[in-house]
Amino acid sequence: MITTMTHDAVTADAVTMPLDDVRTLARKVLLHLGLAERHANAVAETMVAGERDECFSHGLYRLLVSAHTISTGKVSTDAEPSAHDMAPALVRVDAGGGYAQLAFEVGSPLLIEKARRCGIAAMGINNCVHFAALWPEVEAIARQGLVAMAFTPSHAWVAPAGGTKPLFGTNPVAFGWPRGAQNPFVFDFATSAVARGEIELHRRAGRTIPIGWAVDREGYPTIDPTEALAGAMLTFGGHKGSALSLMVELIAGPLIGDMTSAESLAADDGAKASPIGGELIIAIDPEGFLGAMAGAHLERAEALFEAMTQQGARLPSERRYAARQRSLAQGVTISRALLNDIEALMQR
Amino acid sequence: MITTMTHDAVTADAVTMPLDDVRTLARKVLLHLGLAERHANAVAETMVAGERDECFSHGLYRLLVSAHTISTGKVSTDAEPSAHDMAPALVRVDAGGGYAQLAFEVGSPLLIEKARRCGIAAMGINNCVHFAALWPEVEAIARQGLVAMAFTPSHAWVAPAGGTKPLFGTNPVAFGWPRGAQNPFVFDFATSAVARGEIELHRRAGRTIPIGWAVDREGYPTIDPTEALAGAMLTFGGHKGSALSLMVELIAGPLIGDMTSAESLAADDGAKASPIGGELIIAIDPEGFLGAMAGAHLERAEALFEAMTQQGARLPSERRYAARQRSLAQGVTISRALLNDIEALMQR
Repeated sequence: MITTMTHDAVTADAVTMPLDDVRTLARKVLLHLGLAERHANAVAETMVAGERDECFSHGLYRLLVSAHTISTGKVSTDAEPSAHDMAPALVRVDAGGGYAQLAFEVGSPLLIEKARRCGIAAMGINNCVHFAALWPEVEAIARQGLVAMAFTPSHAWVAPAGGTKPLFGTNPVAFGWPRGAQNPFVFDFATSAVARGEIELHRRAGRTIPIGWAVDREGYPTIDPTEALAGAMLTFGGHKGSALSLMVELIAGPLIGDMTSAESLAADDGAKASPIGGELIIAIDPEGFLGAMAGAHLERAEALFEAMTQQGARLPSERRYAARQRSLAQGVTISRALLNDIEALMQR
Repeated sequence: MITTMTHDAVTADAVTMPLDDVRTLARKVLLHLGLAERHANAVAETMVAGERDECFSHGLYRLLVSAHTISTGKVSTDAEPSAHDMAPALVRVDAGGGYAQLAFEVGSPLLIEKARRCGIAAMGINNCVHFAALWPEVEAIARQGLVAMAFTPSHAWVAPAGGTKPLFGTNPVAFGWPRGAQNPFVFDFATSAVARGEIELHRRAGRTIPIGWAVDREGYPTIDPTEALAGAMLTFGGHKGSALSLMVELIAGPLIGDMTSAESLAADDGAKASPIGGELIIAIDPEGFLGAMAGAHLERAEALFEAMTQQGARLPSERRYAARQRSLAQGVTISRALLNDIEALMQR
């Protein structure tokens, strides 16, 4: 039983465990589900990061998502991603139908090398299955001293502004900015009003959703998460959010020779597996523009961050880093209900 | 008198004139204001584009803005921009304190050449005065078959989400996508709830503004455009729009060694001239990722555009292109009030 792990503090409703136990649990389940070891390790790390930073919709909950996707046969469990040098500043990774996490690990050293040599570089990941957050990726690149942006389509779940039918994915935009010895500044937001996982969590919890998140199958506003999931989600920020979502479709779809969200959903063919397609990551080296002056100019960014917090505005990554500090010190708390669901996966 | 131009249809309140007359008028006024000929020509073109596409806040109205900025001495009227090759995929243009338009013209051939050679490239324009829209720039790059993104800070007029004091600029994000023989798909939006020029036009017209555009000096919501201009504008889309605005500050400010919006406003020192600082433009060659398959993959983007319009959603650039077609055929109509203000500039 999962709850007999030695470090765990067990109550009736929840279990508190150190991150190493989260990692061990995630790996064990992913291996049991049939993922090759390299994939299980890479995927487990993003789940550990999700629990650690209290992004619960990207934490251990994703084991359930992954179990379903693997059961549909839509993900290649032992794909070997290969990186291809397309141009002085471009790298393309063929994920071979496997999860994106390992493809990112395989391609990012070449992306970083190219960004340092050329000043800016881009990596297209093709033919991957995507169900993780983008912030771990832009954070990893920013920790190498580079500025990073990342984009990926998903399944056609979101209506464009002025429309009522699903066409765009939740299409996240992520950004990372290096801050020397400090944690990078990072944001990662869905261009939908909320992440689809958020609506799924509301459905699991039996809670209604706010108006503005979605419309039902007829195109009318709804507060019922089940109706929302069957209808169309809405973009954030009206026509501007919709324009941004369309940009993600284009640059992480046709531009890199990969699927749009509508094509991904068509390829899914009712299996309700995770989205298939591509991802675009751009990396920029501050030293390319600034040489030895890069450090001095990046200091001016610190003044900007300080002016934000002084007036009571929050830096997007602040809350995650605070959660991370807590989790590293005290472990994380996983609900009994989720653990039971995960345990059931091991009985399959 | 301006209204005696031969082609013009004159009524009591407005004058209809062909675009060539708009160009002639803009150039004449800009030369009279003291701009060197190369600058007058480059700046006039963006005003012609604004009137032509019915983006009135970037049309001839900007002559008044330009007249004021030039009168403050904050713009170098005869700067000679110079392009510098910083890295295989980076070009930096020193605008020499002049308007950005000529700097873009000088640097963009090298940007395009680098994007074709490296697959992706970026151009930083430094030390420029910025008061034009970004869409003419991304459109020009997209017409060369490349995907383009552009970003620029402005003056600190906008509060970050969770704050009430001006810190960010209106910080536009622009995007261009090539569509073969068709007009490129282009969007260009301020990350503020609206463009500052929009609030200024409301003030000039004596109209109130909607709640959500701005707060007053005390941080309270306001519908008074004068109070709004003295207080702080708000970002679109809550914390997501705010995150995007901060990204623009960083990548078109410190990353390229140039000013943040707060620094630009400080340098302005009450002169109320146009923003000073930098601009970042990224260009990506679809053939870099796709080679000879680029055309086939870009066709799939057309299916996406078609699916949008089929459900009644508008493509962001549609309205501008429709206006353009009208303007090219029938000319544009300029209000008598604006022409009187412009005529007064010629009496200085």
